[in-house]
Amino acid sequence: MNEQIIEELQNIVGPEQVLTSPEDLICYSYDGTFTEHRPDVAVLPASTEEVSEILKVAYREGIPVVPRGMGSGLAAGSIPFSGGIALSLTRMNRILEIDHDNMMATAQAGVITADLAAAVEAEGLFYPPDPASIRQSTIGGNVAANAGGPRCLKYGVTGDYVMALEVVLADGRIFRTGGKAIKNVTGYNLVQLMVGSEGTLGVVTEVTVKLLAMPPAKRTALVTFPRLADAGRAVNAVLSAGILPATLELMDETAINSVEDYLHIGLPREAEAILVIETDGDEADASRDIEVVADICRQEGAGEVRVAATAAESDELWQARRSVSPSLGQKRPNKLGEDITVPRSAIPEMVARLKEISRKHDLPIVIFGHAGDGNLHPNILFDRRDPDEWERVQQAVGDIFAAAVELGGALSGEHGVGALKRPYLEMNLGPIAIDVMRNIKKALDPKGILNPGKIFPA
Amino acid sequence: MNEQIIEELQNIVGPEQVLTSPEDLICYSYDGTFTEHRPDVAVLPASTEEVSEILKVAYREGIPVVPRGMGSGLAAGSIPFSGGIALSLTRMNRILEIDHDNMMATAQAGVITADLAAAVEAEGLFYPPDPASIRQSTIGGNVAANAGGPRCLKYGVTGDYVMALEVVLADGRIFRTGGKAIKNVTGYNLVQLMVGSEGTLGVVTEVTVKLLAMPPAKRTALVTFPRLADAGRAVNAVLSAGILPATLELMDETAINSVEDYLHIGLPREAEAILVIETDGDEADASRDIEVVADICRQEGAGEVRVAATAAESDELWQARRSVSPSLGQKRPNKLGEDITVPRSAIPEMVARLKEISRKHDLPIVIFGHAGDGNLHPNILFDRRDPDEWERVQQAVGDIFAAAVELGGALSGEHGVGALKRPYLEMNLGPIAIDVMRNIKKALDPKGILNPGKIFPA
Repeated sequence: MNEQIIEELQNIVGPEQVLTSPEDLICYSYDGTFTEHRPDVAVLPASTEEVSEILKVAYREGIPVVPRGMGSGLAAGSIPFSGGIALSLTRMNRILEIDHDNMMATAQAGVITADLAAAVEAEGLFYPPDPASIRQSTIGGNVAANAGGPRCLKYGVTGDYVMALEVVLADGRIFRTGGKAIKNVTGYNLVQLMVGSEGTLGVVTEVTVKLLAMPPAKRTALVTFPRLADAGRAVNAVLSAGILPATLELMDETAINSVEDYLHIGLPREAEAILVIETDGDEADASRDIEVVADICRQEGAGEVRVAATAAESDELWQARRSVSPSLGQKRPNKLGEDITVPRSAIPEMVARLKEISRKHDLPIVIFGHAGDGNLHPNILFDRRDPDEWERVQQAVGDIFAAAVELGGALSGEHGVGALKRPYLEMNLGPIAIDVMRNIKKALDPKGILNPGKIFPA
Repeated sequence: MNEQIIEELQNIVGPEQVLTSPEDLICYSYDGTFTEHRPDVAVLPASTEEVSEILKVAYREGIPVVPRGMGSGLAAGSIPFSGGIALSLTRMNRILEIDHDNMMATAQAGVITADLAAAVEAEGLFYPPDPASIRQSTIGGNVAANAGGPRCLKYGVTGDYVMALEVVLADGRIFRTGGKAIKNVTGYNLVQLMVGSEGTLGVVTEVTVKLLAMPPAKRTALVTFPRLADAGRAVNAVLSAGILPATLELMDETAINSVEDYLHIGLPREAEAILVIETDGDEADASRDIEVVADICRQEGAGEVRVAATAAESDELWQARRSVSPSLGQKRPNKLGEDITVPRSAIPEMVARLKEISRKHDLPIVIFGHAGDGNLHPNILFDRRDPDEWERVQQAVGDIFAAAVELGGALSGEHGVGALKRPYLEMNLGPIAIDVMRNIKKALDPKGILNPGKIFPA
């Protein structure tokens, strides 16, 4: 990038907020995946106006701009594969308002989501979306990927909470869309168009989310199923009974054994599945619901049902589910965590297909995820240094996506398409939907400078 | 329209489904407003393929196409002001599937929403959105306007239930977007872009909605407030207490008196407000919640609190709220029902402004609506034959919108922009958001044939 442009960027954000040394740029070259690519420059604006000025320069010059939160993404959505500007929003980290009367909060895009959740919780309010990355990822990144989490079964994903956005367009124009009115049919729903658009349509600089009252109580159960198919049926039976647990998490036997190898907490190695279920509400509801859930699980063939009596016991039960991901690091040098979703009736079939794919390609695939909403995270364990194994991983990924799509599902429930899933998008959406999306992309970013090489097939 | 095109349309749908006589066209010239304009032809396709073929002809010839359900809209969104083809979807009225395992239903666009709700209810399932037009309007029309209703406070609007759509584009191409996977971040959210787009981006031909388990019990209360401001505070106090009633409906004193003049059921004429509140859930929850709500209302200054003991009593209480609209017809020859929304903290201020606007323009404005979600329906009563009065009505409408926008609200919560609110859209959204929307419109409908003259300012 030429010196004059660097100077221009320095004039906008100050010289210290424009990074060009290789050691600095490395920090902006990766995310939560195994991919990396260095930007030409990393720029750290402190305000929406600075973002706007940066984009005006980039638009004039046709320089790629890759917006970035904390780089915890799992789809290579924030890797600057075309170089250009890595636009880090982490300095825009102020919570601007907690509005009690309307039960909403407004934050700059760079606020860590856990900080936002804690700030509203301190005032008795509740921001439900709980991506696993909640302590690292930013609310702006969560909006870009429409992040989910275990609690999204009952409470919905990030997009369900976004009421309003401040957005900077590719050409630097700033606009606001949405508002604090709960219902709104005035023109097209630009808020939900921006949510999940992975920084390809605009740079989100401010987010207003709605909040709930904090449920006073929760109860947790860990339910063992000798047979996986029974666990799948239990999920549907619980939901059909009109009980909506906050979470309904599945671990298959590979996940159970991985965690047991790691923690030695006495998980049933021979069980085909565990469900970790949490109910919430007031004390009476949470307790009654967990008992109803336990009864339904028993009717559907559950073995042991452990209901936590205390918060400490509940933490213990959750430890099993939370340790799946960390435990996998012990097994093989690399893991590729996918994020497919299927209609929840298809979960048992999807799990069967995953086991078949694992055998076919001779690769361990650990299965866990959000069974209640059909969002599974099959994790392939491998060693990237082995080219043959890496080839098999790529074939397995293709097979996984094909199976999900065949069962009426989608490539991604909460991670996004990013760069990694682009080759499979057409298989999922078909050519006409992609053409419509391309036309929208062109309409909003005619020069194609915003996060190029993401979402759309090459 | 020339004979050759008429013949082509007849070849697509059959001669009897192409209407050209003046007496037939009158039926397709109006909606729920006071506006009307005749199309050149009304065409009634029976399938998505026929819709596609019709659009191919229209696209080739540059003929306006105005999609239409049952014509119950309240924003002149389906009036064919530019002539062309009125595309009635009412023959596409089959419920295609009720999927118990995934708790979803799929219907053609022309299914009456009440028929869909009844069909799923017969199987123990629940489709919550309940627009006042539910017995007349179609699910396709509800999607086009993102229809709401009283129950949307707890359960959300139509768009919150739309999982997947089949859409015919302006050029006749057919595509599906969304699916039965609950979480989905694969490309842009075209489902929510279509929802509320009022037939300007594509013709929705099939809709898949998610369903809930039917709540087994509900309880209703009618609460009288001597002072309106107290009713506003009670609404916020209830919601802040973590109680989410199914409905939280407001009637101001003008609405109370209008209904009392009409029904003579002993409503408190001197009260400044009534709230009609319904809780639901299982028997214990619904009963407990209505008691908590009643207590909170008393603390906030309620006078009489009537809690229905039986379903029949509950119907009686609802009769008051349901009769507001019909009662207004007795008062003056015409009424103009607006649909503004404000952040719910601003409801008392909005009501005060409405009263001021009523005085300023010497026009009765009856106020009622969905207080829990900030969506009010101020109804201006007038006689359109009086040109001076009509002029004052238009000024009052402008003042109402200006007040709503100033308080952080929107022009429409559930009726849409249509033709009637176009002049005010820029005041609400600003020029940049409208430019973005125009670019999206151009990207999807480059010839501008789909429902021209709607949403966008002239």
